[in-house]
Amino acid sequence: MSAYKDLETRFARLFVLRDAEGLLHWDRATMMPPGGAEARGGQIAALKAVQHGMLIDPALGELLGAAGEEAGLDDWQRANLREMERLRRHACALPEALVEALAKASAACEAAWRWASREGDFATIRPLLEEVLALTREAAGAKGEALGLTPYQALLDEHAPGMAGEEIDRLFTELSDFLPAFTAQVIERQRSRPPPEAPPGPFAATAQRALGEKLMRALSFDFHHGRLDESLHPFSAGTPEDLRITTRYDETDFAPALMAVLHETGHALYERGLPPPWRCQPVGNALGMDIHESQSLIVEMMVCRSPEFFAFAGPLMSQAFGAKSSGTGGPAWESENLYRLNTRVRPGFIRVDADEVTYPAHIILRHDLERALIGGDLDLAELPGAWNEGMERLLGITPPGDAEGCLQDIHWFDGAFGYFPCYTLGALAAAQMFAQAKAADPDLMAAIAKGKFKPLLCWLDDHVHSRGSLLPASELIEQATEKPLGTEQFKRHLKDRYLP
Amino acid sequence: MSAYKDLETRFARLFVLRDAEGLLHWDRATMMPPGGAEARGGQIAALKAVQHGMLIDPALGELLGAAGEEAGLDDWQRANLREMERLRRHACALPEALVEALAKASAACEAAWRWASREGDFATIRPLLEEVLALTREAAGAKGEALGLTPYQALLDEHAPGMAGEEIDRLFTELSDFLPAFTAQVIERQRSRPPPEAPPGPFAATAQRALGEKLMRALSFDFHHGRLDESLHPFSAGTPEDLRITTRYDETDFAPALMAVLHETGHALYERGLPPPWRCQPVGNALGMDIHESQSLIVEMMVCRSPEFFAFAGPLMSQAFGAKSSGTGGPAWESENLYRLNTRVRPGFIRVDADEVTYPAHIILRHDLERALIGGDLDLAELPGAWNEGMERLLGITPPGDAEGCLQDIHWFDGAFGYFPCYTLGALAAAQMFAQAKAADPDLMAAIAKGKFKPLLCWLDDHVHSRGSLLPASELIEQATEKPLGTEQFKRHLKDRYLP
Repeated sequence: MSAYKDLETRFARLFVLRDAEGLLHWDRATMMPPGGAEARGGQIAALKAVQHGMLIDPALGELLGAAGEEAGLDDWQRANLREMERLRRHACALPEALVEALAKASAACEAAWRWASREGDFATIRPLLEEVLALTREAAGAKGEALGLTPYQALLDEHAPGMAGEEIDRLFTELSDFLPAFTAQVIERQRSRPPPEAPPGPFAATAQRALGEKLMRALSFDFHHGRLDESLHPFSAGTPEDLRITTRYDETDFAPALMAVLHETGHALYERGLPPPWRCQPVGNALGMDIHESQSLIVEMMVCRSPEFFAFAGPLMSQAFGAKSSGTGGPAWESENLYRLNTRVRPGFIRVDADEVTYPAHIILRHDLERALIGGDLDLAELPGAWNEGMERLLGITPPGDAEGCLQDIHWFDGAFGYFPCYTLGALAAAQMFAQAKAADPDLMAAIAKGKFKPLLCWLDDHVHSRGSLLPASELIEQATEKPLGTEQFKRHLKDRYLP
Repeated sequence: MSAYKDLETRFARLFVLRDAEGLLHWDRATMMPPGGAEARGGQIAALKAVQHGMLIDPALGELLGAAGEEAGLDDWQRANLREMERLRRHACALPEALVEALAKASAACEAAWRWASREGDFATIRPLLEEVLALTREAAGAKGEALGLTPYQALLDEHAPGMAGEEIDRLFTELSDFLPAFTAQVIERQRSRPPPEAPPGPFAATAQRALGEKLMRALSFDFHHGRLDESLHPFSAGTPEDLRITTRYDETDFAPALMAVLHETGHALYERGLPPPWRCQPVGNALGMDIHESQSLIVEMMVCRSPEFFAFAGPLMSQAFGAKSSGTGGPAWESENLYRLNTRVRPGFIRVDADEVTYPAHIILRHDLERALIGGDLDLAELPGAWNEGMERLLGITPPGDAEGCLQDIHWFDGAFGYFPCYTLGALAAAQMFAQAKAADPDLMAAIAKGKFKPLLCWLDDHVHSRGSLLPASELIEQATEKPLGTEQFKRHLKDRYLP
């Protein structure tokens, strides 16, 4: 067996174990009784340790060296080697004891977050988050040293490989220069018109779920290979053969759950479209979470907040709820009204419910805060205050409590620092891709108005999904959209939609 | 670190991975979309291979040798070593490739069984079962050689450690000598009385589930540490902190789902009661499936088919369904009638729905057939015919098709040969234990009539649950019941209940 083939065998085993670990996470967030949390944390930590052990095995290092000399490898195989090396570099930077300690501390903190986020009790969870943060800083320092990056950049590199911290700063600065005045203008303009009408509730969770599943099917989500469930924080998990997405239902408003379903469906379609011959190989993997978020946001924001989408989906929404609450539906169920409702711009406390204009402010806040936390420039005791101060500065509102503030997102409590920038990087990439797909097919929006998403999905499949990790994210974006990642198309999209 | 302590660390890791594997099985049977089956098979196979690799590691063998010489180990530690050695002996008998091949073949066959059992299509699934059987025979041969047992006995030893094949033959022969005439007498006697009245359905699955949960709570099942779900074949899985039991609902009759819930609750209570200081150590594990089935059957058969149980649970059943179907409940909902209904003796096709008098015949049939399959004396092509012939011979009925015949149980299709005898061994042990518990506390049945199960559960906890694998099964039974495992108490129980 050639060294390269031997590596493929080893990584296939590794990725199968990673998939198994993924199911333990999904179950924890959807099915697990609370009393199972500690044991589950141990299971996840053990699986992480086994994978880590496989990656740092000196024999793997030798095989990588030998395979690098092998002649006759094609582009996919070379890219596969590149990704293998990246995974090994990240793993070798950390001792196994730290991997396990971090997994266990994150599991304990994540379990407590389920309770603390509901209660708005930051004080009680703080010691657990302190431990996660201390271990994350230790890991970030070790990784930074190994990779020649600052600690925070080393964390970014886990979630958005190859994305430089300076590049994020440049893009975020451009957005910060543009958004405040733009947002004010949009709000002013929307205020000058009669407000859209909220459809009358309540909206039974079962009906919301049925509507979500109908729209998932329209977007070609295959229930033979996936499920929709409920969790405290919507997410997407699973494998290409078994995709698990979740949402949460609010019976007074159906839009948040539905938009979460559409968002997570975008993630799932990316996973489902990954190249089957490279399943369970690093190169067959999705790119970083920045590209992943581009796929969720292109569905949720670009497509599913367009007038064309509501032309198609408005009648389905009316059927799902309208007849029940008012007999015939009524003006609140008109597509135009629903479109206006779902593109209202209003600063709010909750990131996942934010409109696409104010969303970047939520990310910029978290980016600033987590960089300060990792850099040791912000103490956790000061986090709630710094959060509220930032919300006031960036969005002009102050959360009434930590449940609507620094406790709202699972990420830090689950040990994911350096993840948040991916949402806004993804939004920028989504705008560029969507513009390119529309330019390639002028009938794309008309098709969406008829509930036909194939033209868009085919473009995404060709340019993103089926390419796996063949190219680094920056090259993928440049090949797909004919320009490097920037803010121009995102700003143009916002202008077209909100200040036409 | 002493060799013994090192072993504890290694086995703790091993058992945590085994728990993770357990969740993958549970999810496969309850949540997984059909398209995930193949990938899941790969995940389970990989996890099994990792565990197998840990067990056959030569360093583990050396540690076991060194620990055996260590002074100062207490009884639990010595028993832990004994169980570690047993696990290693079983693992070393098999090459890793066979472990993985068997796991994958079983997964593929188990997935097909979900469809084939519904359709009654044995021909289509046969090639998959052929592969499972061929690999199982290979494994049984290798284990038999390593353990000095016949191939079939080696399989028995996986499920009921230490139980000799000759002992099973002796016990089953005693039952075969007793049951046919006894069964005929009981049927004759029951026929001579007016038949019990079946409560009028339908019985909504949601109401069945609520009633099941209520009775689980009465039996002290803790939903902070467990769940009740649905699956094609009822089962119990999970860990002491996170117990997962399942059932299946038939809206025309609530008894099968409820009795399955009570059966699986018995399994769950055993797991929950295992000694916490030995969690994730072999000695903290449940004993074999023979003892496990004794715990499910003592709940389902001994307790929950007693007149005292129906005195307590009858009114709850009436409340759950009676008021809805007839306004007041009516005579079908009387405790006495429900007791008579649930102790009717009638030969039937389906093992899991069988009464306790005809149940052993189902097991004796499967025992004979699987021994012949493993021994190479029966070809799979002949299995459906041999099954039907056996049902006719043992119970006087012939299944209308393979769905009600050789396709009804998941076990063989999931690779579990040598498991079936555990049900009847468990029934015998349950009868002995129940008699002993009643003798120790003359008020035990009166408590059950009031819905108080603590006296029984405390006895079980003291004599079975909390002892983990400290003693081999035969010694545990002898210490708990003051005699070796036999058929006498089981026969006495049947006589007392069915021919008083």
